Amino acid sequence: MIRIGVVGATGYTGGELVRLLSVHPRVQITALVSRSEAGKPIATVLPHLQGLSLPTLSGYDPDALAAQCEVVFLAGETGFAMEHAPQLLTRGLKVIDLSADFRLKSPTVFAEWYGKPHRAPELLQEALYGLPELTPADAYGKARLIATPGCYPTAAGLALAPLMQAGLADPQRIIIDAKSGVSGAGRSRISVEYLFSELNENFKAYGVERHRHTPEIEQTLSQQCGQSVRVRFTPHLVPMTRGILCTAYVPLTQPIRAEHLHALYADYYARQPFVIVRPLGEYPATREVYGSNRCDIGLTVDTRTQTAVIISVIDNLVKGAAGQAIQNMNLMFGLDATTGLPVAGVLP
Amino acid sequence: MIRIGVVGATGYTGGELVRLLSVHPRVQITALVSRSEAGKPIATVLPHLQGLSLPTLSGYDPDALAAQCEVVFLAGETGFAMEHAPQLLTRGLKVIDLSADFRLKSPTVFAEWYGKPHRAPELLQEALYGLPELTPADAYGKARLIATPGCYPTAAGLALAPLMQAGLADPQRIIIDAKSGVSGAGRSRISVEYLFSELNENFKAYGVERHRHTPEIEQTLSQQCGQSVRVRFTPHLVPMTRGILCTAYVPLTQPIRAEHLHALYADYYARQPFVIVRPLGEYPATREVYGSNRCDIGLTVDTRTQTAVIISVIDNLVKGAAGQAIQNMNLMFGLDATTGLPVAGVLP
Amino acid sequence: MIRIGVVGATGYTGGELVRLLSVHPRVQITALVSRSEAGKPIATVLPHLQGLSLPTLSGYDPDALAAQCEVVFLAGETGFAMEHAPQLLTRGLKVIDLSADFRLKSPTVFAEWYGKPHRAPELLQEALYGLPELTPADAYGKARLIATPGCYPTAAGLALAPLMQAGLADPQRIIIDAKSGVSGAGRSRISVEYLFSELNENFKAYGVERHRHTPEIEQTLSQQCGQSVRVRFTPHLVPMTRGILCTAYVPLTQPIRAEHLHALYADYYARQPFVIVRPLGEYPATREVYGSNRCDIGLTVDTRTQTAVIISVIDNLVKGAAGQAIQNMNLMFGLDATTGLPVAGVLP
Amino acid sequence: MIRIGVVGATGYTGGELVRLLSVHPRVQITALVSRSEAGKPIATVLPHLQGLSLPTLSGYDPDALAAQCEVVFLAGETGFAMEHAPQLLTRGLKVIDLSADFRLKSPTVFAEWYGKPHRAPELLQEALYGLPELTPADAYGKARLIATPGCYPTAAGLALAPLMQAGLADPQRIIIDAKSGVSGAGRSRISVEYLFSELNENFKAYGVERHRHTPEIEQTLSQQCGQSVRVRFTPHLVPMTRGILCTAYVPLTQPIRAEHLHALYADYYARQPFVIVRPLGEYPATREVYGSNRCDIGLTVDTRTQTAVIISVIDNLVKGAAGQAIQNMNLMFGLDATTGLPVAGVLP
Repeated sequence: MIRIGVVGATGYTGGELVRLLSVHPRVQITALVSRSEAGKPIATVLPHLQGLSLPTLSGYDPDALAAQCEVVFLAGETGFAMEHAPQLLTRGLKVIDLSADFRLKSPTVFAEWYGKPHRAPELLQEALYGLPELTPADAYGKARLIATPGCYPTAAGLALAPLMQAGLADPQRIIIDAKSGVSGAGRSRISVEYLFSELNENFKAYGVERHRHTPEIEQTLSQQCGQSVRVRFTPHLVPMTRGILCTAYVPLTQPIRAEHLHALYADYYARQPFVIVRPLGEYPATREVYGSNRCDIGLTVDTRTQTAVIISVIDNLVKGAAGQAIQNMNLMFGLDATTGLPVAGVLP
Repeated sequence: MIRIGVVGATGYTGGELVRLLSVHPRVQITALVSRSEAGKPIATVLPHLQGLSLPTLSGYDPDALAAQCEVVFLAGETGFAMEHAPQLLTRGLKVIDLSADFRLKSPTVFAEWYGKPHRAPELLQEALYGLPELTPADAYGKARLIATPGCYPTAAGLALAPLMQAGLADPQRIIIDAKSGVSGAGRSRISVEYLFSELNENFKAYGVERHRHTPEIEQTLSQQCGQSVRVRFTPHLVPMTRGILCTAYVPLTQPIRAEHLHALYADYYARQPFVIVRPLGEYPATREVYGSNRCDIGLTVDTRTQTAVIISVIDNLVKGAAGQAIQNMNLMFGLDATTGLPVAGVLP
Repeated sequence: MIRIGVVGATGYTGGELVRLLSVHPRVQITALVSRSEAGKPIATVLPHLQGLSLPTLSGYDPDALAAQCEVVFLAGETGFAMEHAPQLLTRGLKVIDLSADFRLKSPTVFAEWYGKPHRAPELLQEALYGLPELTPADAYGKARLIATPGCYPTAAGLALAPLMQAGLADPQRIIIDAKSGVSGAGRSRISVEYLFSELNENFKAYGVERHRHTPEIEQTLSQQCGQSVRVRFTPHLVPMTRGILCTAYVPLTQPIRAEHLHALYADYYARQPFVIVRPLGEYPATREVYGSNRCDIGLTVDTRTQTAVIISVIDNLVKGAAGQAIQNMNLMFGLDATTGLPVAGVLP
Repeated sequence: MIRIGVVGATGYTGGELVRLLSVHPRVQITALVSRSEAGKPIATVLPHLQGLSLPTLSGYDPDALAAQCEVVFLAGETGFAMEHAPQLLTRGLKVIDLSADFRLKSPTVFAEWYGKPHRAPELLQEALYGLPELTPADAYGKARLIATPGCYPTAAGLALAPLMQAGLADPQRIIIDAKSGVSGAGRSRISVEYLFSELNENFKAYGVERHRHTPEIEQTLSQQCGQSVRVRFTPHLVPMTRGILCTAYVPLTQPIRAEHLHALYADYYARQPFVIVRPLGEYPATREVYGSNRCDIGLTVDTRTQTAVIISVIDNLVKGAAGQAIQNMNLMFGLDATTGLPVAGVLP
């Protein structure tokens, strides 16, 4: 059994890690860290975890973690990992970070979009960007530090990778219109705008002028096509808890029939258990991957405007966070990617 | 008092007409027509209308309507108006249609998108397309037949008109990503896919390959810019009852600063009581116009991709249907456009 | 025109007062007070109020209010009114309070349930408890200070008054199981438990051991039956924004047929425009009074257990707060109770 | 591996059985029966089951089932099991029914509440009512036919069993006020009243005068206390998909302190992995058992009215249907009750 620690266990992503890991057949949760709730059983903070045998919440202590665990998931706020990952790596731990700290390769781009200098720039090249369907499988064996992609970059990256790699997209005019459930905001974002009465029966855009996932999406797409990519990315908030749907509009550099595009996608993801390319004419809904680690994709070509329209859905807390982090752990430890991860969604 | 009849009174749009007209100071509802529920008080079908003094539901009878009313709202399914409007006009009634029957000017385009020939093509040119903020005010005086625009074309048309008219948009590459509450599907669309358990906590696209509002949007935008416009239009279904948010992406034909674009919009809508151009940096949410006849607009220019991003919101049953129809009626009868119509939204 | 001031204008109840008063034909809003947002236009805080002509938010100043208004609505937190109402009354203003401060007649009971002594006990007897359907009409003429009932006591009081007055209820064994939308918690209750992601798709009880509306309900019911009443009251939180449904279970002191009970209710409320006793076999849903000032009631007698089951619904922000306060104002100023108040609900 | 068949696989309960069984370590799904969708892959009907290896949907054929399976879950409409279970039993299959057909022991009571005679009355005594926490463990070994309890009777039975058994309840005056998510209505109940726009943001009672779960609840409670029990049961519909919360009010026959009642419950359920008696002062929310097979219980004693108040929550599709059926199967086959069943809820 792989001994696991989760830092930031009482947030939504942390709680989801615990839920998923509690039924994973190859791991044992040996440490749960919460700086604000240390000393309590986790079920007093997250009552949906009642009935499980879990370690009591403890404060953050790298030496204790090194004694208790082989791998540590960091599910805290942005900034925590770049401050603390080095000391965990030094103690021989493997680290899987779920924050944005190690996703961007360039410290300059990081500073530009996150508004502060990176505190561990020396680790940026080493950190493996773990989007398993796009990341070379052989990169996992030697990885000590994995950056789990953001939720939007996961949905957008999987939606666009085959098209980018095929060289069919105009790389400067891609539009990504994304819609997310509210849980992406996390459990510690406590302000009027996240109250139930403000968001229920309400739909809105946010981060319209600038959202931090833009450079991460561009980094992924640029790697796929070998060119510098610019995207217009607009996220929206849907009155639901979980789920992201990403509608991508790609001006085509040459005419292509929908059947060909579909075949391209089907081929690209043929061996990926967590990506389902739905039949032509069928488009996925977020509910179909609720609680699942899948990403489902539907697509068409609008011949009137020569635009490829690609629609992808994920559960932002599973494939967009905790599930993908565990998929990364599976690969890091030589397990099958699907071990312990849900394929079926929870519907209705 | 203007004597009013509503045909199709027990659908969502019909019920909303009754709700709004019941507090309109200048009208009297004299006939409520429902072919399936004739003979019943409307409140037995739509209990939210309890406590009002309203005529009993009756069957459809053009002679009776001519005796009882001056103007008739047609809130039935597509196809009803083109069959029945001629006989109402012949009897001297004014007709305000809320269906798609008289929106498109070209019978060929109608047949192409609606899959059947138009049954009253001779009225298509006469019918006034009543999007009051874009329609010449002097056209209302002589109108006998008004086509109330579709919900998406209202939101998209108001979002894009100033930009089209200014000649700043590339007319072949406009993308309209729209999101709607479920009530747009109506009360008679009874199938598995509209069940609560299917749509709640779920977000999806629909009509991706082809949606009938596409040619209507193109007709409106073409009129504004004097050129043939092609749009990629993708509607989505939001797990909420009311509201449309339209995110439009327009490739700019020349660089323009956000401040200038904002000034252009503010000027264009300066005298329109129901269109609010929100300050730069502020984007409207659907809830803010819930139950209101307003359309609020927010905008920016993405200088990284030279794209104007315009966001508009309406209540699909008010400004997108019943409210706009009443606004048309006000103008048709020489009343102030705002008479009896709600400006404030219902929030929370 | 009656000149109106609203103190606490940026809360949910305050905003609802403004929305409703903005279309009231006999009033003019002359002062909007918000201590935290003074100096701003109200629409910058509550964007659903865009497009209205309203005074700018100002700080709380009793002299200014006395100069600007005839009547002031107090929509602040519990505690504000008992501190400030006296000075407003002294300045000749009429005061309609929406908080709990003047609802209970006994300062002892107030102290017991609110955990602090009352600061204006001398006004408790004078204050008129304004539940218009139960309050003697002639009491309004001389009233200077009106206490608007709580949302639950309104729904429960209207549900049970006819039964209590008829002497059919065992006064010690009444059970009131109430369910409320989230907006009752207000806009300033900002904590984890009111986040969208916590309450969406979730149903729970709260205040199970003790809820402050218990003595207010008992006071109302005791007045109706002339005996001391004890109720078991359990409120629940429904994942929706507006609406209260109250299910009351009353052990009957003598057998009665449902038809008789229904006739009793129909008779009791025969002249009340805002209370609809639905036909036997029909039970109201919250949505049917959404945005309306109505209270709809359905009932039956369970002959297997000799229990009357009464179900009432209101919109907690309208009949349960702002609408009822305006109804009180109408009566206070000799207007028809229904003036400016919505009868129809907003549905769907 | 236990070979499993599911009849009625494309309903909500059937789909949930498939979802849960697909990760159960000791079973193999060998037959999926749907009379309306035979011949299709199940994922074309229920896309959340994409990515699983499952048999194609087939028509109902008892011989084929006997060849393919050891045990068959019947997840069809009421009436199917009493018609078809005999022939499955004859063929040596074990049967776990999820409908109401074999829950009531008395054919007379069945006929009274279901409005038709029972078609297999000879099996009613044999059928094991499988509410595992209340059913004797040794009854499972010899069972051929198990009736899985209804969702409300599960929640109510678990909420009240300890109190009934202790003889503390007045058996004629129990009130059960229950609230359910919409998925309980199933996927084939297609009518206006179950449309999203009708139920969203709406709360209502239903079945007020008479609900078929009443006699089932009374049967369970009567068995626990050895007396004839009468309950007043009122179900309500909550605008959410999953979850039942049951608020039970029990007049106490003797005074008891909350601490004693809590100890009684804690003791009663001490060895039950799926029932959590929450600490005094803590009450469960439906979301905390979403997707879980748990039933969580909170309780207090209202000393003002001498009433015990017990609140229980379940997921109606898991502990209230598919999960409990699998728990029954586990016990029927000598497995640990928890095998393959989720303990943690899905939150947020």
